[in-house]
Parts: sequence; C-alpha cells; structure tokens
Amino acid sequence: MDKIKSLTGMLDLYDDGDNSLLPAKLFYLEEKIKHIFKSYKLNEIRTPVLEDANLFIRSVGGASDIVNKEIYSFNDRNDKGIALRPEGTASVIRSIVEKKLDQSNHKLWYLGPMWRYERPQKGRYRQFNQAGVEILGIPEGMPEFEMISIVCSIITEFNLENCTIKINHLGNQKSKESFCNALIDFLEPHKKLLDEKDNQRLEKNPLRVLDSKNTNTQEILKNAPSMKEFLDSSSVNLLNSIKNEFSDICDIEIDYTLVRGLDYYSGFVFEAVSSNLGAQDSFLGGGRYDQLCAKLGGKNLPSIGMAIGLERFAELIEVNNLPEKVVSFIVVTGNLEPKAYKIAHQLRSLNKDIVLDIHLSEGSLKAKLRKANKNNSHYAIIIGEEELKANTAIIKPLKNELEEQKTVSIDDLHSFFKSL
Amino acid sequence: MDKIKSLTGMLDLYDDGDNSLLPAKLFYLEEKIKHIFKSYKLNEIRTPVLEDANLFIRSVGGASDIVNKEIYSFNDRNDKGIALRPEGTASVIRSIVEKKLDQSNHKLWYLGPMWRYERPQKGRYRQFNQAGVEILGIPEGMPEFEMISIVCSIITEFNLENCTIKINHLGNQKSKESFCNALIDFLEPHKKLLDEKDNQRLEKNPLRVLDSKNTNTQEILKNAPSMKEFLDSSSVNLLNSIKNEFSDICDIEIDYTLVRGLDYYSGFVFEAVSSNLGAQDSFLGGGRYDQLCAKLGGKNLPSIGMAIGLERFAELIEVNNLPEKVVSFIVVTGNLEPKAYKIAHQLRSLNKDIVLDIHLSEGSLKAKLRKANKNNSHYAIIIGEEELKANTAIIKPLKNELEEQKTVSIDDLHSFFKSL
Repeated sequence: MDKIKSLTGMLDLYDDGDNSLLPAKLFYLEEKIKHIFKSYKLNEIRTPVLEDANLFIRSVGGASDIVNKEIYSFNDRNDKGIALRPEGTASVIRSIVEKKLDQSNHKLWYLGPMWRYERPQKGRYRQFNQAGVEILGIPEGMPEFEMISIVCSIITEFNLENCTIKINHLGNQKSKESFCNALIDFLEPHKKLLDEKDNQRLEKNPLRVLDSKNTNTQEILKNAPSMKEFLDSSSVNLLNSIKNEFSDICDIEIDYTLVRGLDYYSGFVFEAVSSNLGAQDSFLGGGRYDQLCAKLGGKNLPSIGMAIGLERFAELIEVNNLPEKVVSFIVVTGNLEPKAYKIAHQLRSLNKDIVLDIHLSEGSLKAKLRKANKNNSHYAIIIGEEELKANTAIIKPLKNELEEQKTVSIDDLHSFFKSL
Repeated sequence: MDKIKSLTGMLDLYDDGDNSLLPAKLFYLEEKIKHIFKSYKLNEIRTPVLEDANLFIRSVGGASDIVNKEIYSFNDRNDKGIALRPEGTASVIRSIVEKKLDQSNHKLWYLGPMWRYERPQKGRYRQFNQAGVEILGIPEGMPEFEMISIVCSIITEFNLENCTIKINHLGNQKSKESFCNALIDFLEPHKKLLDEKDNQRLEKNPLRVLDSKNTNTQEILKNAPSMKEFLDSSSVNLLNSIKNEFSDICDIEIDYTLVRGLDYYSGFVFEAVSSNLGAQDSFLGGGRYDQLCAKLGGKNLPSIGMAIGLERFAELIEVNNLPEKVVSFIVVTGNLEPKAYKIAHQLRSLNKDIVLDIHLSEGSLKAKLRKANKNNSHYAIIIGEEELKANTAIIKPLKNELEEQKTVSIDDLHSFFKSL
C-alpha cells in the first residue's frame, strides 16, 4: 500500500537519544526554559491552537508580515475564518479579556507550537515552537527590568556565547507620533525609490520601514532622522539604567533603529541576537504593547512581553546529559516469564529516580549488553532460567571495570536497587 | 471595540495557582506522567498537529466514531484534505514508516493536544489532551506486561482509588475471524432490531457491535457467543498470567466483552476505569495493533499502544504542592529603583531552587505582604528608601511567627538566600 507522507514543513520530532539533533535539543531547552520561567513566579497559560482569524488581523496588524502572507488560515464547516495561531500574545490577551481578568496584574508564560503558511525554507518550518512571557497590568518601569533579567538568566543558564541584547524605546504616544511624522516627511520625496512593500509599510506603519531588508531603502535611511532626537528624558533614562544595571551580566546595546516586526509594540522594545546564527541573528524579542488589550475590546492594560523562537534557539545550545541513572533489565529465557517481569515492576517502586530499561525483545545476551552500553546504563540486571529457578539475579556493572558481576538473591537485588 | 471570543469547545488553560481547577491539575499530571514514562526509558516523539486527512481514514477506520463524525478536517489553499489529529497512534506509525525506522524496535511516548469536531459537551472539548505510549517491533509477550506495568505505575503514583484494569484478548487472526463469523451469524436474525449505527458496525467491523450503548442491542447480546469460547490457550494464558502477576498491585479483571473503539486493534486490549467517573468510566485504554504499520505502507511491525485522556484523568487526581520555596521581593520606594531590581537578579543566580516573586506593581507594603502570604511565600525581602541608601534589606519571615524580621547588609542577604 502506498505511504502517507507528513505535510510539507511539518516536522516529526523523535528523540532517539542523539543529543546533537533538533528533537533532543528542543525537548531539553523546553524543560530548562520552563524552570527559569517558574523561578520568576510566572504562571502558565495555554490557549487553544485555533482562533477566530480576525483576532490576528486586528492585533498583529495589517502591516506585519505575519498577516500579509504568513497566516495559516482556513474556513471551517460553517464557513467561519479560522487561523492556526501565528504567535502567542494575541491569544493570551484575548483570553484575559474574555475571562474579565483585564483589571488585574498577571505574570505569565506559555510554550507551544505556532504556524505560518509561507513556503518553508531551511530552518523555517510551517509548524514551529515558541516560548513566551507576558507581564500584564503594570506600566513602564519594573516590568522592563524583569524582562531583561529573564533574558539575562536565559543567556547565562544556557551559557550562550557571542550574544547581545539590543534595546530601544519607541517613545511615548507623543514622541512616537512626532518621529513618525518626521520619518514620513523625510521618506516622502524618496517614495518612488521604495519598493511596493516599503511603500505599504510607509502607509500603514511607517516605523516598520526601518526594518526593511531592501538595500536601496537602507541606503536612503542613512540620512533619516533618528528616534533618539525625539525621545524624552524618561525614555532615554530607562534605556541607560537597564544598560548600566545589566551590562556586567550580559552584553547590552542601545540600538535606536530597533523596531520589531509587529504593529502592536510601543515604548520599550528589545531583541537578543547571537553572532553564531548568521544573517538572521535574532532568537528572542519583545516589547511593550500598552494599547493591544483595549484594541481587542478590553480595558487599558499596560503590558510587556517577549517570545523565543525555539528552533532558532536550539541552534545555539548543547544538551547536557541529565543526571539520571539508567539500569538495563535483561531476561534471557526461551519462554515468556511473567515472574521476571514482575521483579522489574517491583524494583521500580523501590527507587523512582532510576530509569529502568527493560529489554523487551528476543535476542542474545551479548546483543542486549551491547544495547545496554549504548543506552548509557550503569548496571545490567540479568535473569536467565537458572536464576529464575534459584530466585536470584545477576548484577553486572557496566561503568566500572574493576567492579565484578555478582549473583544475588531477589531480596539483595531489592536492597541494591534501593541504594542506587 | 467588540470582543473576539475563543472558538466553541476550545479551552483557555490559565493556572493562576488554584490547585482545585483543571489547568493546575492538567499541568501537574502532565509533569508526573512524563516522569513515569521516562523512568521506563521511553523516548519522546512529537508529530505535527496537522496531517493528511487520509491518514486517519485509513488507520483509525471507517467504522470508528472518530472518522464517522468526529474528525476536525478542512481543505487547505490547495484544496488538499487536512485533519487536526484526533489521536496519536496513526501519526506515530506514519512517522516511523516515513523515516524508514519500521524495521527496528521503539519504546515511545507522546503528549499533546488532539481535536474532534463533534458538538462539545460537558467535559468533552473540541481541543483536548492525550498522553500515550507505543511499543513497536516486538510481538505479543513482554510488551503486554510492560504496558500493564505502566498502567499500574500510573494508578499507584497518583494514588487513584476505585480503579480497575480490564483486560481482554481479541484473538489471533484465525480465532478473531471465527468469532466474528459466529457473531455475524448470531446477529443476522436480529438485524431489524438493531439501529442504523449498529447495522453499520455489523457490516464494517462486527466486533464493535459489542461496544453498542443501545439497550436493545445490549439485550440481544446477552445470548451472543462469547469471545472466550474462541480464544486459543496462549491468549487465555496471557490474560491469566497478567492477572496473576499484577493483581496484588492493582485490581485486574478479565472482561471478554471489552473491544475498544478503534478498528485497528487486534490481540491484547485493555482499559482502566474508575467508579469515581460515573457512566463514562474509562480514562485510559489501549491494545495491540500488529497490522497498522503495513496498512500505512510500512513493514510488518508488531505494535502495542495505549492512550490516556488527560481531562478525564484530571477529574481523578488532587494536586500535591511542589516542594518549591517561594520568596517575595518587595520594593517600596516612590521612584523606580533599578539598583533594587539588580539586587533581585543577583539573588537568583545564587540559589536556583528558589522561586523569587518580585512584586512589580506600585502598592502599599501592607498590600504587598498580603499578596506574599497568598503566594505562599516563606519570606519577604523588603527594600525601602532607607534600606537602599544604607545598602541593607529587611528579611521578614512569613511562615514562622516566632522568627523576627531583621535588617541585614546586602552581603548577609546573599548568604541568607544561598542558605535557603
């Protein structure tokens, strides 16, 4: 019968123990990132994978790449527009508004798959994973420090090298407007030199022109007014004090051209980049989005968030072996021996920190010991027909060549296993 | 602006610390189940959420409820039939075949969201969560014991009460056929008394008539031939020895009417039920499916699996508080004090086992201490303007009324935090 294939750009992640591959890296970093989030007393929120497609059109914004071409949407059986979420923030805010929790403070984290429809490329999949943090209900100040503290913790906990945290401020409502107007005035005479995409941006969200990858546009922007000239002193002070307080922990750089790709950002924005990643060097980013909640029908809820692209992040890390102890349980008898299996089950309950790998298939003792070594087992417990009859088992050390194998009673096997 | 709502039957899971609610229960049990799976040296596999819709039609089967009415499918922009996975096994086998791993053994676990389209009911959501185990490549024998051992571990680790593991055997190819024929012969004269659904089942997969909820059908079935009469001795022996070996750990019952709702099962099947759950009392089930891999275009790969419905399972458990220690960090100054924040960041790096909850919003000391108590904090570290100037901090014990608060230097604060 012919085979059914996975869909284009949708990965199977199977961690078969090879720590150099993406699945092992992803699973490892997810656990570690969750631990960091929890140590900040962030609470987990998990929103559904599917949302009303309007949610992302209204929130992420018409000028963003996400909505323009990337969103994975379809019509359901009732012809309603449904989207697989392209990012986490809009759903979190939708949820907080729906639960009427938009009058209190929340410190949240999430982690899960997201989708884009654009043609998959190397390292960019249609289903990908993001982790994120949202701090809701608190205006500019401490939350900015908390965010950068979390970013620093991630960088130091994973021992990431060659990383820089870039920070910027998009200004308050007034200074952002002034800067936008100045930018429009400056770009207007060059309009014909801009490509269609940048002209669209200029119309919908002029700040995003600063993000353009077009070299013509970049050349023109060299003489553009700088955000810096329009920021008031409190914004500049915030950037400086974050740089001052955290520079001994991570490399922090104030970058007045940093904009971030989503329409809803305002105020403080940041991004972590690594020179180990090549041209697309950003693996984490975020910023303040004080207007989003009201835009989605909620109260005024000052908010700041960040998201980490986990596949990108995985390229930066090495997996440290967990401190788990593995013991292989090997039965070598001609027939099925339920009693041997029962011994294994009893061992488990005596020491829950041990990974007990029962070799379930037929095979020679030699082949099974080879597998035990490959599985990084510390010991093999071997039961053959003789041992079954005599109610004993063989304990064979696999890591220490000086230690000899020994035959023990089942009671002594219990004590041995407990003491591991 | 009007609000955008979540889609029908799709839950937001927000764990705000209330352990009696579904989110806290789900997140807690997921971590614990993962730990059990890992202790069996199962490897994680994570397949994409979306699949070619044909995968489920071919595997889960035309007679199953899943495909008949429940599958959440849509056409993508290229008019290809896409489905949100309704269960985990078909995708796992599709993945193993696609990676050409269908000639070796695998012990796998997965955990994640699944979807159904049917009208949501109380406790049945459109997006729900399942965890599962698949043991691939090993014929009947040890894997059956491994599966029941995992079920027993889950029941005992969570201290579940009033649970029974029901086991049955659908026979080998030959005995299954004989029984099916006998069942068809028996039901044929009663055909007019069966409802449409049961008549469909009779045609497509007669065994599934045994699953019927129709009371007429159940009445008729009372005189039907029993599976037991058709099983050969090795199948009966397997059931008996599993019952013998595990009955001192969990309640095990041989139930010759147990069929399971998916077409692909053959041989050994099982189900865990709890009388605490009411009418729909099953929270876990599985069985052997030796033919599925070849049906999906792969080799002959004898396989056995199980899945746990996590929302159902959550109804059975209570969350035990983690042994984490929480410390509240409270700054009470008029202005933003970056230096105070830096002290908090330094503390974190000194003791990674502590959850340090920084109170980020404005508010009185009294309000913040109330929050610290609510958060179950062991201590509050308090820094006001005086302390900032003097380079000191207040340590206030919150759990021990006999211990007095004290003002310490930042160096002593470090030592205190390290020693927690």
